[in-house]
Amino acid sequence: MNHQVRLRARPVGRVRPGDFELVEAPVPEPGPNDVLLRVLWLSLDPAMRGWIAMGKNYVEPVPLGSVMRGFTVAEVMRSNHPGYARGDLVVGMQGWQEYAVSDGGDIHRTIDPALGPPSAFLGALGHTGMTAYVGMLDIGQPKAGETVVVSTAAGAVGSVAGQIARISGCRAVGIAGSDAKVKLCLDEFGFDACINYRSTPDLDAALRAACPDGIDVYFDNVGGGTLDTVLDQINVGARIVVCGTIGMDSPTGPRVERKLLVGRARMQGVLVLDHMPRFDEGIRQLSAWMREGRLRHREDIVDGLGRAPAALVAMLEGRNVGKQLVRVAPS
Amino acid sequence: MNHQVRLRARPVGRVRPGDFELVEAPVPEPGPNDVLLRVLWLSLDPAMRGWIAMGKNYVEPVPLGSVMRGFTVAEVMRSNHPGYARGDLVVGMQGWQEYAVSDGGDIHRTIDPALGPPSAFLGALGHTGMTAYVGMLDIGQPKAGETVVVSTAAGAVGSVAGQIARISGCRAVGIAGSDAKVKLCLDEFGFDACINYRSTPDLDAALRAACPDGIDVYFDNVGGGTLDTVLDQINVGARIVVCGTIGMDSPTGPRVERKLLVGRARMQGVLVLDHMPRFDEGIRQLSAWMREGRLRHREDIVDGLGRAPAALVAMLEGRNVGKQLVRVAPS
Repeated sequence: MNHQVRLRARPVGRVRPGDFELVEAPVPEPGPNDVLLRVLWLSLDPAMRGWIAMGKNYVEPVPLGSVMRGFTVAEVMRSNHPGYARGDLVVGMQGWQEYAVSDGGDIHRTIDPALGPPSAFLGALGHTGMTAYVGMLDIGQPKAGETVVVSTAAGAVGSVAGQIARISGCRAVGIAGSDAKVKLCLDEFGFDACINYRSTPDLDAALRAACPDGIDVYFDNVGGGTLDTVLDQINVGARIVVCGTIGMDSPTGPRVERKLLVGRARMQGVLVLDHMPRFDEGIRQLSAWMREGRLRHREDIVDGLGRAPAALVAMLEGRNVGKQLVRVAPS
Repeated sequence: MNHQVRLRARPVGRVRPGDFELVEAPVPEPGPNDVLLRVLWLSLDPAMRGWIAMGKNYVEPVPLGSVMRGFTVAEVMRSNHPGYARGDLVVGMQGWQEYAVSDGGDIHRTIDPALGPPSAFLGALGHTGMTAYVGMLDIGQPKAGETVVVSTAAGAVGSVAGQIARISGCRAVGIAGSDAKVKLCLDEFGFDACINYRSTPDLDAALRAACPDGIDVYFDNVGGGTLDTVLDQINVGARIVVCGTIGMDSPTGPRVERKLLVGRARMQGVLVLDHMPRFDEGIRQLSAWMREGRLRHREDIVDGLGRAPAALVAMLEGRNVGKQLVRVAPS
């Protein structure tokens, strides 16, 4: 028997567990060129908030009644496909379900176990690590001695972005949403400073204190008022990597064009799916840093597909610490 | 006898001719390493609005009571400086006056008369032409077949930007503020389409009609609501060149980060003074295009230094057509 989590309702405002439903379905039968996959790990990502909304996005919204979209690590149980063998572990978009059939079109890569544990391919060695990698290196372009600020610094993307800034010789300053996350950033991820934006009475002043030489790169996972505060402290030639907008709580705000002009600054959106050709090289580099002890990652794991909706809500409210994963089956 | 125009008052709101005063002063005496310059041409630029304001800018505000800052073409009358000879024509920042002494520090270059007429070195072969050159080519990066939109399309920067887009094989769509300017853009500068933003009832619809394939590059000289309208029509991977903000009539507006993320778009400020090393190459290229008939420029000339304040006000209100110059002395 297969279990699936389907999208039942489009959330209005906050996402609720009841927007999803757990259903039973038959285990699908692979066709002549298909593989049957058993999902081991499911990744929960802030982008899912956009996937279930109606608005314009970089992908189509998940249709109501469909299996919820999601990145997965899965094991090949049966293969009628020449590219995959029984026992292979693959990263793909199998979604929120225990079993899936694939013709390979929604499989992104076969995991090389020498590079790291399977779950890491949904985090530091996966799309979140690669988001940090291309966002920081290609768009942020940190130079040794510069100051780099990262929001959601304890998160799956932010923690890797900050560590790449450190590896690049920069001062890394994090912004995070709890004292536990601040501690994680300082002790585990090696940020030079980290601010709890929920408890600081004055983010502007706290940021100025943490960035005495101004801000050269901002890796932004939140947008909104935090972005506005950073833009008032950028140096000439600053780069702003627009990676997420989960903190954009108003459709309007201070205009940016004058700040970008006076600062001759660059602000650019990044979507990792545009950078698939970089994955082989990037994953090898990230894996090397991990094995050298220069890149650490932290996972927040819940067990069982049925707990995915509640875990997604918790993550969207900032209650996870580290990359949020659902262990769908023991591996 | 020397004449100077000095800044008398910081404008509140609109600039008025009375914010300046014409005064007499002695012709200055060059020191042992100086040149005495006679100003022939004075350039009037939208950036001057920022130079006389109090706010943060890329240069210090012009002090009250000082000679107004401005780009000039001047002739060397006497030289005690080994780098300059009597009769040389130089581009510099001699400001709003008939005679000036310089140690060379505020001289940008000696004009090569083979490349074009002296006044062109304040326009298409000067800082405005070079603003368009580096802004369009380095930041806009137009590719053949793309759609490029330019605001203040009939202006000194916009007209060159649009023509470089055409030379790059793009569809060039202008936005301008009068029917005469629209006609100039179409007939003289070769834009494929041009919109009079003052008379169109619906800029969004007019732009969609003029850009059926969406917008890949926006060379923005105005900011504000025009920028907002363009951002709603950008293609994935769009580049927005932030060159001027003269149309930014409100400090707040729609937030941009979500648009930049969904469009994986780039928005970047350009200031030509950062690109001085490109001037030799750029001016040679712009001059070559001019001599080949592929780059046209239009000058709007007033005679006499005393008319500079009124001409500046007219230009800031959009009443000029082409690069606004003051002929300070016959050349």
